[in-house]
Amino acid sequence: MIIIMEPKATVEQINAVKRYMENKGFKIVLNHGDVMTVLAAIGDKRLIEPQSVASFEGVREVKLIQEPYKLASRESKEEDTVIEFKNGVKVGGLEKPVMMVGPCSVEKDFGWLMEVAQAAKEMGCEFLRGGAFKPRTSPYDFDGLGEKGLKYLKEAAEKTGLLVVSEVMDTTDVDMFCDYVDLIQIGARNMQNFKLLKAVGKTGKPVLLKRGPAAAIREFLLAAEHIMANDNDKVILCERGVKGFDSTFTRNTLDIAAIPIIKKYSHLPIIADPSHGTGRRYLVEPMSKAALMAGANGLMIEIHNDPDNASSDGAQSLNLTQFRETQRHLNKLIGRIDYDNKVLKAEIEKAALRC
Amino acid sequence: MIIIMEPKATVEQINAVKRYMENKGFKIVLNHGDVMTVLAAIGDKRLIEPQSVASFEGVREVKLIQEPYKLASRESKEEDTVIEFKNGVKVGGLEKPVMMVGPCSVEKDFGWLMEVAQAAKEMGCEFLRGGAFKPRTSPYDFDGLGEKGLKYLKEAAEKTGLLVVSEVMDTTDVDMFCDYVDLIQIGARNMQNFKLLKAVGKTGKPVLLKRGPAAAIREFLLAAEHIMANDNDKVILCERGVKGFDSTFTRNTLDIAAIPIIKKYSHLPIIADPSHGTGRRYLVEPMSKAALMAGANGLMIEIHNDPDNASSDGAQSLNLTQFRETQRHLNKLIGRIDYDNKVLKAEIEKAALRC
Amino acid sequence: MIIIMEPKATVEQINAVKRYMENKGFKIVLNHGDVMTVLAAIGDKRLIEPQSVASFEGVREVKLIQEPYKLASRESKEEDTVIEFKNGVKVGGLEKPVMMVGPCSVEKDFGWLMEVAQAAKEMGCEFLRGGAFKPRTSPYDFDGLGEKGLKYLKEAAEKTGLLVVSEVMDTTDVDMFCDYVDLIQIGARNMQNFKLLKAVGKTGKPVLLKRGPAAAIREFLLAAEHIMANDNDKVILCERGVKGFDSTFTRNTLDIAAIPIIKKYSHLPIIADPSHGTGRRYLVEPMSKAALMAGANGLMIEIHNDPDNASSDGAQSLNLTQFRETQRHLNKLIGRIDYDNKVLKAEIEKAALRC
Amino acid sequence: MIIIMEPKATVEQINAVKRYMENKGFKIVLNHGDVMTVLAAIGDKRLIEPQSVASFEGVREVKLIQEPYKLASRESKEEDTVIEFKNGVKVGGLEKPVMMVGPCSVEKDFGWLMEVAQAAKEMGCEFLRGGAFKPRTSPYDFDGLGEKGLKYLKEAAEKTGLLVVSEVMDTTDVDMFCDYVDLIQIGARNMQNFKLLKAVGKTGKPVLLKRGPAAAIREFLLAAEHIMANDNDKVILCERGVKGFDSTFTRNTLDIAAIPIIKKYSHLPIIADPSHGTGRRYLVEPMSKAALMAGANGLMIEIHNDPDNASSDGAQSLNLTQFRETQRHLNKLIGRIDYDNKVLKAEIEKAALRC
Repeated sequence: MIIIMEPKATVEQINAVKRYMENKGFKIVLNHGDVMTVLAAIGDKRLIEPQSVASFEGVREVKLIQEPYKLASRESKEEDTVIEFKNGVKVGGLEKPVMMVGPCSVEKDFGWLMEVAQAAKEMGCEFLRGGAFKPRTSPYDFDGLGEKGLKYLKEAAEKTGLLVVSEVMDTTDVDMFCDYVDLIQIGARNMQNFKLLKAVGKTGKPVLLKRGPAAAIREFLLAAEHIMANDNDKVILCERGVKGFDSTFTRNTLDIAAIPIIKKYSHLPIIADPSHGTGRRYLVEPMSKAALMAGANGLMIEIHNDPDNASSDGAQSLNLTQFRETQRHLNKLIGRIDYDNKVLKAEIEKAALRC
Repeated sequence: MIIIMEPKATVEQINAVKRYMENKGFKIVLNHGDVMTVLAAIGDKRLIEPQSVASFEGVREVKLIQEPYKLASRESKEEDTVIEFKNGVKVGGLEKPVMMVGPCSVEKDFGWLMEVAQAAKEMGCEFLRGGAFKPRTSPYDFDGLGEKGLKYLKEAAEKTGLLVVSEVMDTTDVDMFCDYVDLIQIGARNMQNFKLLKAVGKTGKPVLLKRGPAAAIREFLLAAEHIMANDNDKVILCERGVKGFDSTFTRNTLDIAAIPIIKKYSHLPIIADPSHGTGRRYLVEPMSKAALMAGANGLMIEIHNDPDNASSDGAQSLNLTQFRETQRHLNKLIGRIDYDNKVLKAEIEKAALRC
Repeated sequence: MIIIMEPKATVEQINAVKRYMENKGFKIVLNHGDVMTVLAAIGDKRLIEPQSVASFEGVREVKLIQEPYKLASRESKEEDTVIEFKNGVKVGGLEKPVMMVGPCSVEKDFGWLMEVAQAAKEMGCEFLRGGAFKPRTSPYDFDGLGEKGLKYLKEAAEKTGLLVVSEVMDTTDVDMFCDYVDLIQIGARNMQNFKLLKAVGKTGKPVLLKRGPAAAIREFLLAAEHIMANDNDKVILCERGVKGFDSTFTRNTLDIAAIPIIKKYSHLPIIADPSHGTGRRYLVEPMSKAALMAGANGLMIEIHNDPDNASSDGAQSLNLTQFRETQRHLNKLIGRIDYDNKVLKAEIEKAALRC
Repeated sequence: MIIIMEPKATVEQINAVKRYMENKGFKIVLNHGDVMTVLAAIGDKRLIEPQSVASFEGVREVKLIQEPYKLASRESKEEDTVIEFKNGVKVGGLEKPVMMVGPCSVEKDFGWLMEVAQAAKEMGCEFLRGGAFKPRTSPYDFDGLGEKGLKYLKEAAEKTGLLVVSEVMDTTDVDMFCDYVDLIQIGARNMQNFKLLKAVGKTGKPVLLKRGPAAAIREFLLAAEHIMANDNDKVILCERGVKGFDSTFTRNTLDIAAIPIIKKYSHLPIIADPSHGTGRRYLVEPMSKAALMAGANGLMIEIHNDPDNASSDGAQSLNLTQFRETQRHLNKLIGRIDYDNKVLKAEIEKAALRC
């Protein structure tokens, strides 16, 4: 931690900060510049709340040096985390990128969902996604079938050999979700719902954590840390777009760079959601390809099979025809990446990883 | 709703959209331009999910004309909502702006909190704020005393004649909160935790709803609508800063313009939180004044009485000496505004409000 | 400057950075933490380009400690800069805030402009603003009368006793501007047009520098530094709104906090432009008041007198009736601030300024 | 254009707007909703400045339906623009993506630059980039060799068979640039320097236009329109990152989605600059690949050959070893895309393009 003092800070003020930090177990190096004094505090940041020292008289600013997450960091675990699911599907590292597809929300009868699930399976996807409980910006919008939706998802997945991922919205539903889903999703709006993070952490189930629309990468990894601090290291991150200043052509700005950044600073797998990340059908394919080339461990894409009566499908959903065509292109790309990854793996076995 | 078709949309595609909207009860006016066709759909937006029509082939974009919230809108209720509390304190409209002050989190023993409460009362404040359950970005930070904190708050408030406001973080705690607090706070990170909004809505208690750091004003008012749709119109909004591109000098960008905008489009009271909105002590006073002059119905400010041992107080908290000085200046300003408001009220009684 | 090394940086890499910095004249303090090594480089940042050291192998990040501007900083000049104009008008410090009003662009005949100028003078304003050369986002929009517009401005100002402020857009026009205007404006889109900054710097004339819509405060002050480095310290800054994520209700986000922040870090005067800063007529008055209470040294407001035929006036311009009513309210507020400032001044003479 | 009236707008106010628009040559369709009236104005937007109608009493908001640029739009020219350079290099459409590489600024002696140019040629790149006049955020930073730098660039390019691209910063330098460069660059900070856009437009030379850090896509295309309105349709756009809220790990947010969006709405070529777009060396390769897969017509990348003495190279520049390795990977990817593009071209010749 670096503590920058005001140019007019007195010797007493500087000493008070120094004493406080030393009492907390930090080693202090004082750097007196021409204009201002800077204290380098060496030690474990988690021993104190950095904001507490920022409240001292004469302190201008506190800068963190080491990232404040620990379990999620690459420093604490060098090799990539790879999460294995019941049917052998693996997510993370140099494994083949996975596809999670399905409708925004599960609606109507079971047959409708089966049709989507069969298309997903036929195209080689691994996960069936679908909302049973929907977070809706407006209270007047359809908010999902509830537990019945989860039953449909599980049944469709079992019949087709897919895995189920669905979003939980409240701590009271977490146990029920464990009965139905293989991967519990935390939605972007709940990324900092810390009670919910703790609750899903305790289940030990794999968790898909979506990035909040205003979450800095550091906040995103700290949210993962909340899950991991409850003894659950099976966390898959998902970049799904952040708020930008131009919402004329897209709903969000899909932050592709977050993928290689997170791969550098964390060992956790990260996928991308180009459907929510752009909000436009015609952008799903190019942004899917971009995310894969930037290193994504998978994609989450919205598809539907009945646009004329859909309650929450929208401008970002592909119909089954569009999905099949897009998926063919993506599979071709994934095949190449997979091949490249294997070559890379072999190379790595022969030589130490270059920095 | 305005539906803009692609320049190359076919007559069949245009007719399909027209038919769908008419079946949903909308009246459609077709405007054929030189380049593209635009459909104006007149009727109640809430009959359909606008995204559903956006998924039709040939649709380029859907634009909302009428704001999607209803109960929170100025159209549905012209006069300002004024919320009255048990001791006669009123929030909203032309009432004197209220002050909500206290520590970030309730800590240590009761005496510590009483000292803050007495300073607040002595300076003329109306509400004692304090976190008993704290949302912490890092899992390693102190997360509050829990119910004991609420007990302390209630006792300190009763002894001094203040009202209590504190943040609830989970649906399972809502009932307990009703026993201790006069105003239930929904934090910025939970602004779109719809289950929680519903739960606090059902209590009928006044709710303080903080704006999420990436929430557009429309999304903010739709979050209020979730509470109001559960028969609770006692909602106070709170502007607390949004994410900006420059975090060198402030934590957030306090969006002062949101105050007069919300006053135009909604009848709900709105206050400002310059402590979280800036994250810097020296900005609390000027931004408090700015918010009051822009029409805020109150302010929420963090104060503390023991910086050297605080667990979550920080660069934004005023100590008791700083608080008293700032509050003296604010009281002077509030006195003038209060006087101006009364003059204005008398004028309004004599004449119709100008637009 | 703080140089943070990668956790895996080798001793050789650390030494290479140390040697390079020492050769450039910096004193280096090495801080070895458990995870990574941090170098504190003490000395004048301007001796090197910080990015150059960032390109060394093993460097993770370079953080500036001292702000990179010098002439514009409060450290280099403690007392407020006050700029005096030919008729005795002063801008800055505790002087009475000034008003700069006028049409977006000068149009049509001279009589039209005189009417606006007379209203401005009658209401106590100090500056007549108006665009003669207009930066237009679209090439098809009216782009100003050119030199004729400047002549009209000068004549209207002389007849009414106002000062002229107008925007220059190209280095080749700078000399001509000096003949007509008292204050040369650099528009937001040209804030980092460094050739133009240099050219206006060399004139020695007072310069009004508008903040770019994506400019961090540090970049804004560095733009002022470009002018000042050419021996011109007569710079007035202008906050006019930055790009935000919600453009439904405003064109920009007026960053009111920038006013007290800049007052802390710089000695230069700063005014606000609530017309461009919001883009909405009804927000001009509340945001003007907010800016004044936050410490603005003046306001720039767009007014017009013939909306039905205006070429570039818009949703943000007040007509003369609206202007007179708004200005009456602002004058009342300015009178109070002016009174408060004088009291404050007297206090300061009696006592040292508190930090 | 859609004009939304306030709910309380009077019949007279509505009629005044209607009359004004009809006088300007628009056909008006009135849509009376339950709450507010909406006017659809059908006709050429360029006949009026939309802001002028926004200033009428009773108008709440004006929404554009048709994009305000014309020459740059896909509607005005369906087929992709492909720009051919003197040595047969083509940029745009389905042509092989081009590489523009070189140092941030041209420095020191000619030999230094030749070494970079030879590496670029050897790796198959088409353009040599380099700054002769540098826009520097700080006035104390090195700002380029000036015309000598351009001479070096031209000579190095002629000796190696590369093309030259370099940034012009002032209208007075435009003629000189035409003697030295094949592609005139307008930097991000000058994207809305309209005098400069006009000046480079008039040269008829190919122009590389970089997106401003706060420019919406609409503003970006309108800046291109300024060049094209001066009879120069040889414009290459360049996405180079926009301001985001998280600058911890990157300098800007590279908006990859802008590539396919611009391909849909415009016929102009678009390339990406991952060096400035991220500001980090380790992100150049993954973001280059992402941009290419999203459809970029080329890449601009910063490379250097002497980090220890570079004046403005930085954390984002690759040294020659890193460049060669990265370029090998990119060439492999470009080869595949090129192959795919040819297959696609053949398909297109056989069938009409799907929408």
